[in-house]
Amino acid sequence: MAAPAFLPELATQVVVPVAAVVGIAFAVLQWVLVSKVKLSPEPRRGDGSSAKSGAGASEYLIEEEEGLNEHNVVVKCAEIQNAISEGATSFLFTEYKYVGLFMGIFAVLIFLFLGSVEGFSTKSQPCHYSKGKTCKPALANALFSTIAFVLGAVTSLVSGFLGMKIATYANARTTLEARKGVGKAFITAFRSGAVMGFLLAASGLFVLYIAINLFGIYYGDDWEGLYEAITGYGLGGSSMALFGRVGGGIYTKAADVGADLVGKVERNIPEDDPRNPAVIADNVGDNVGDIAGMGSDLFGSYAESSCAALVVASISSFGINHEFTPMLYPLLVSSVGIIACLITTLFATDFFKIKAVDEIEPALKKQLIISTAVMTVGIALVSWLGLPYTFTIFNFGAQKTVYNWQLFLCVAVGLWAGLVIGFVTEYYTSNAYSPVQDVADSCRTGAATNVIFGLALGYKSVIIPIFAIAFSIFLSFSLAAMYGVAVAALGMLSTIATGLAIDAYGPISDNAGGIAEMAGMSHRIRERTDALDAAGNTTAAIGKGFAIGSAALVSLALFGAFVSRAEISTVDVLTPKVFIGLIVGAMLPYWFSAMTMKSVGSAALKMVEEVRRQFNTIPGIMEGTTKPDYATCVKISTDASIKEMIPPGALVMLTPLIVGILFGVETLSGVLAGALVSGVQIAISASNTGGAWDNAKKYIEAGASEHARTLGPKGSDPHKAAVIGDTIGDPLKDTSGPSLNILIKLMAVESLVFAPFFATHGGILFKWL
Amino acid sequence: MAAPAFLPELATQVVVPVAAVVGIAFAVLQWVLVSKVKLSPEPRRGDGSSAKSGAGASEYLIEEEEGLNEHNVVVKCAEIQNAISEGATSFLFTEYKYVGLFMGIFAVLIFLFLGSVEGFSTKSQPCHYSKGKTCKPALANALFSTIAFVLGAVTSLVSGFLGMKIATYANARTTLEARKGVGKAFITAFRSGAVMGFLLAASGLFVLYIAINLFGIYYGDDWEGLYEAITGYGLGGSSMALFGRVGGGIYTKAADVGADLVGKVERNIPEDDPRNPAVIADNVGDNVGDIAGMGSDLFGSYAESSCAALVVASISSFGINHEFTPMLYPLLVSSVGIIACLITTLFATDFFKIKAVDEIEPALKKQLIISTAVMTVGIALVSWLGLPYTFTIFNFGAQKTVYNWQLFLCVAVGLWAGLVIGFVTEYYTSNAYSPVQDVADSCRTGAATNVIFGLALGYKSVIIPIFAIAFSIFLSFSLAAMYGVAVAALGMLSTIATGLAIDAYGPISDNAGGIAEMAGMSHRIRERTDALDAAGNTTAAIGKGFAIGSAALVSLALFGAFVSRAEISTVDVLTPKVFIGLIVGAMLPYWFSAMTMKSVGSAALKMVEEVRRQFNTIPGIMEGTTKPDYATCVKISTDASIKEMIPPGALVMLTPLIVGILFGVETLSGVLAGALVSGVQIAISASNTGGAWDNAKKYIEAGASEHARTLGPKGSDPHKAAVIGDTIGDPLKDTSGPSLNILIKLMAVESLVFAPFFATHGGILFKWL
Repeated sequence: MAAPAFLPELATQVVVPVAAVVGIAFAVLQWVLVSKVKLSPEPRRGDGSSAKSGAGASEYLIEEEEGLNEHNVVVKCAEIQNAISEGATSFLFTEYKYVGLFMGIFAVLIFLFLGSVEGFSTKSQPCHYSKGKTCKPALANALFSTIAFVLGAVTSLVSGFLGMKIATYANARTTLEARKGVGKAFITAFRSGAVMGFLLAASGLFVLYIAINLFGIYYGDDWEGLYEAITGYGLGGSSMALFGRVGGGIYTKAADVGADLVGKVERNIPEDDPRNPAVIADNVGDNVGDIAGMGSDLFGSYAESSCAALVVASISSFGINHEFTPMLYPLLVSSVGIIACLITTLFATDFFKIKAVDEIEPALKKQLIISTAVMTVGIALVSWLGLPYTFTIFNFGAQKTVYNWQLFLCVAVGLWAGLVIGFVTEYYTSNAYSPVQDVADSCRTGAATNVIFGLALGYKSVIIPIFAIAFSIFLSFSLAAMYGVAVAALGMLSTIATGLAIDAYGPISDNAGGIAEMAGMSHRIRERTDALDAAGNTTAAIGKGFAIGSAALVSLALFGAFVSRAEISTVDVLTPKVFIGLIVGAMLPYWFSAMTMKSVGSAALKMVEEVRRQFNTIPGIMEGTTKPDYATCVKISTDASIKEMIPPGALVMLTPLIVGILFGVETLSGVLAGALVSGVQIAISASNTGGAWDNAKKYIEAGASEHARTLGPKGSDPHKAAVIGDTIGDPLKDTSGPSLNILIKLMAVESLVFAPFFATHGGILFKWL
Repeated sequence: MAAPAFLPELATQVVVPVAAVVGIAFAVLQWVLVSKVKLSPEPRRGDGSSAKSGAGASEYLIEEEEGLNEHNVVVKCAEIQNAISEGATSFLFTEYKYVGLFMGIFAVLIFLFLGSVEGFSTKSQPCHYSKGKTCKPALANALFSTIAFVLGAVTSLVSGFLGMKIATYANARTTLEARKGVGKAFITAFRSGAVMGFLLAASGLFVLYIAINLFGIYYGDDWEGLYEAITGYGLGGSSMALFGRVGGGIYTKAADVGADLVGKVERNIPEDDPRNPAVIADNVGDNVGDIAGMGSDLFGSYAESSCAALVVASISSFGINHEFTPMLYPLLVSSVGIIACLITTLFATDFFKIKAVDEIEPALKKQLIISTAVMTVGIALVSWLGLPYTFTIFNFGAQKTVYNWQLFLCVAVGLWAGLVIGFVTEYYTSNAYSPVQDVADSCRTGAATNVIFGLALGYKSVIIPIFAIAFSIFLSFSLAAMYGVAVAALGMLSTIATGLAIDAYGPISDNAGGIAEMAGMSHRIRERTDALDAAGNTTAAIGKGFAIGSAALVSLALFGAFVSRAEISTVDVLTPKVFIGLIVGAMLPYWFSAMTMKSVGSAALKMVEEVRRQFNTIPGIMEGTTKPDYATCVKISTDASIKEMIPPGALVMLTPLIVGILFGVETLSGVLAGALVSGVQIAISASNTGGAWDNAKKYIEAGASEHARTLGPKGSDPHKAAVIGDTIGDPLKDTSGPSLNILIKLMAVESLVFAPFFATHGGILFKWL
């Protein structure tokens, strides 16, 4: 036996929870800093006071007030923020009610299916991998898997909900800070994003750590069973994320498309105009879709890649020899990740200050680079301290010898591949580069060429990310089999706190702009928030790139764990069972996208009708003398998204069950591989196409270059064509594209959890033939 | 050894060439019948004669003439036809010049690469599969593969060229016949399609048969080598088809999009208006893209599936025992197919007559059903007579016992899956059903919702075809391994003559309508040709469905043959080499589509500029007093398509070579499987989305129902939105979508041809690491 890791078990037992607690504390600190921006008016100094007198308050508000009533503006901002927060909370509660019901049923299914593997026997059984030893009964695994599932779902739910709360807490504050300058506004938005990022990364780690230790009390020496049960955590997290992404995605885009089609196109009023009845629903959507949905999604990825790594580790030398520290290597990587991100955040908030608009995007980009660089050192450290120099990893029936520096390479290649994907995404979606400018230029000849060029851009943007993913897979797979792939995914996700911070920053800025518009603040404020928002569009696309890239790695790792668990040693494309799985699996992302896009379309049509009805029947809306009926629009989005999320959700959740039960594990392997290799392409191209259209429109609107000015101004024919592209891109980039991550991950983790059941009771159709 | 087949060798040697000759004779007969429509004016009866006097000629022209000068109309039609024919001929000659150069280089490559397998030795070598026997040297295989490659390319080229010639010969005649009634016009268009269908099916079979017999003189007993060399035929056919589809596709859509964007959208003149400078280029495009390209494509599929079946058969009991009749079973199936299609054609041309517009689509649909039904009997017959009761089939290293009725099932399942795909395609693209009507309805809220609904429709339309393909694969694969899949593909293609007839009918009718418009014929004639054309849109989509479905089966069969030839016994997704191939392969269709769509976009932009320039600088165009400069537009399309077809062509042709040489056969297997399962989805969805948009537009224009009239008339906002969708659909359905068939087929057949080289010299990167 090789020498053990440097880090003793006790140290690991300290490092992991401490890192988690530090992360949570840092999140709280950021929240305290954000909350210092007061959302109640300053004490008045005389009625009808001019902006000047308001500006004389605690902090100097530069000239932007332009005679607006300071008191009224703040009150209005607070009002709007309340409306948004209430709408979002009410939607999430409704969503959670339905999803909770579903989760309950699914939890029962998990228990029954897994319990039935050994006929609900309460006797200990011979172990699956370590022949000769005795392991806990399947019934115990069923019970603990179910508990882990619920735990994962609840953690995901709480993460999403808190994220939404923070975002709605922050957006009006960002608007108010924008009066003091773009730097102040940036910091507020960024800090709020950081609250979410750190809270999510740290709590995910913390709950997982606690669960492992608590479950360990029962499982004792049976690490195989322990980590098998823990995979339920990943399934719970991702199931929740599925509904969050799909439901939230439909909500946000139905509202957005509906608001734009009537407001911008028909009535010619600006985006986020308070006269538009769907405007509150639109702003609520940003919070439930882009914030809560995204949070749940990345949490799911994180939980799943940890589970995939743990399950493979448990049947490798770490698990067999009960080496605690290397066993928890995945958690150590995440712990170091939190610290690395913490340092990185300081670069944006404390070490440097944003002073001008054009410093925003570079500052956000620097976050990616710094976190990656710092984390590379962190990984090296953790691989050196936390792993023995050499060990063996389970590789589809055999054990493969691996060195600690090889595992370092696995994690690092994932981390750096993430950076590559991030930069490629930026290149294809930022209007600072030629691809988006070409798309904007094609608007000259109308919406049709805009769409053709945009679709082509999305397709093209797939190339380099796929090569990056393929390279990471090849390297990590060759070095350390599926464990290598799992830790590569963890590597990509190790900077999740920073990733989420810059990702959440986007919708917060978007909402801040909306609030400025609705509160009737000066157009110079709006220009500042627009600049924040444009950078946010790009970072949102980068965030999606990370989400997709990591989803690909995670799914492969889960797939590998599933195959190991289902005792398949080859997945041979040259067998009919596997091949039909492959081709049908490759079809599923299309089926799923058809459902989600059609859902957005139908919900948007309903929204359009309602908005038109209000404009036509409520007098005084267009004049701004009567308030439109925001609540009905919120209700339409809520009802539509709840109703429409069921069919795509069912498709994803039921496919592995149906295929596994009827056709067996070989066909299911094919389905997983097919869905993975096909889904990742559509997801990337859909996100980037949508992002590019959005920024092509913004490029024309901003008119910051000679070229852009020939296409503009707002309302010109090229601009109208660009708006059409943007509207088409909405469901692509915010509903169907990002939901596909979850499709491929969730089917894989579900297969893994149910693998023991499929292996014993599955494939009845072929058995019967 | 089992009993031999009923049919003796001599009978087979008679049946196959006779069927081919009958097919060719039938094509000639149809051509003679079409040529009876005279394209020179009737002898005049006095100058300035009214339509009435013209109508008194040989055949009674119903009231449609409405005072038009009969003589002038016929002369004008002849003139326009000449212009189209000349444009098409000139483009094809230019295309063939460049492609010829490429083919020459590639032929040399084939010879060098395959010759190098045994170091250009001229000595006979031990056989590859039948150990102990002696086979011809690799150098001979290199030489004959090269000859077969050239033969395939030339046959494909001639087929495409003749198809184009017939189509341009037929379209003005269809227009003139439309004066006599819709039935007459239908028969002319349909007969012309049949000329192409039968000529192509019969000559493909004939050349293959001759090649086998001639090559056989040298090869003698070495059937392994003989049929390996014959695969060059498939490669030649498909390489040619690639450039035909891509070049023709870019040509036709650049012209179409360019013509529509300026003519219909900006200048508000009707489609095919002679004042539009791009109108001739547009009509030329229909002939070079939809006719010549489609013809080459299906010929390629036919040649490849035959080759795949033959190569597997040669290493099965047929080949090992030198049983001639069962060895030529694939050719027998195609022979019977020609006869079955001949009978089917009579149902459309002789047994029933079309009298009204709404009988057209059912008549075309009946063609599919009748040919499938007749062919099922034909397959049963051929399987009973041409195969021994039991035999063995090579199955990745083993021999599998198969019964003749099982092989019947394999062919039949392919045939019927084709019918299912045809009907599903019809359902999703015909405006008689709700999917297209829903898309049309979504135009109410503008182009954005139209595009969202259209994309969703395309994604959804993938589901059933994929299940049909998966079922066919599963059944045929399980019954007779890769031979089963190959004959299933042949089954789907066995009714190719009918398929091509109804497919070519579409662009002929489209052009006929164009000529009617340009010749200034009455709008009632135009209505008739429009009705023919609308049915043609659906049949074109069905044809594409067949092409894609058969391409999927063919590619899999070729893939299987490649794997056998490269001596791989498993393609295990759970190895990094294969998995990276799979994910990169799944990306290739996106890369390819990005290239082709961008090409269409750029070429269309150039066309738009030229058309605008002509409208702005040549006085009198809009008034119809000056002829626009058609030739410049033809030149722009020609130049653009020649230039733009090189990068996508290179991507497809070089990928297998690069992957095979650098990464070896395992990774290449992954690439082929990935490209297949991903490409088939995009191809189906792109074709159907495009077809649906086209027909949604036609639905609004025709205004045949209450619902349709609420969306119209031409020029209304919903109609404008529909036109945008139609324009976006153009490159999807006619350029990138159908080219993807060829991508997946060609990479597979190329890998098969080069398999001996890759197996000996490939994978240098991994060897070197």
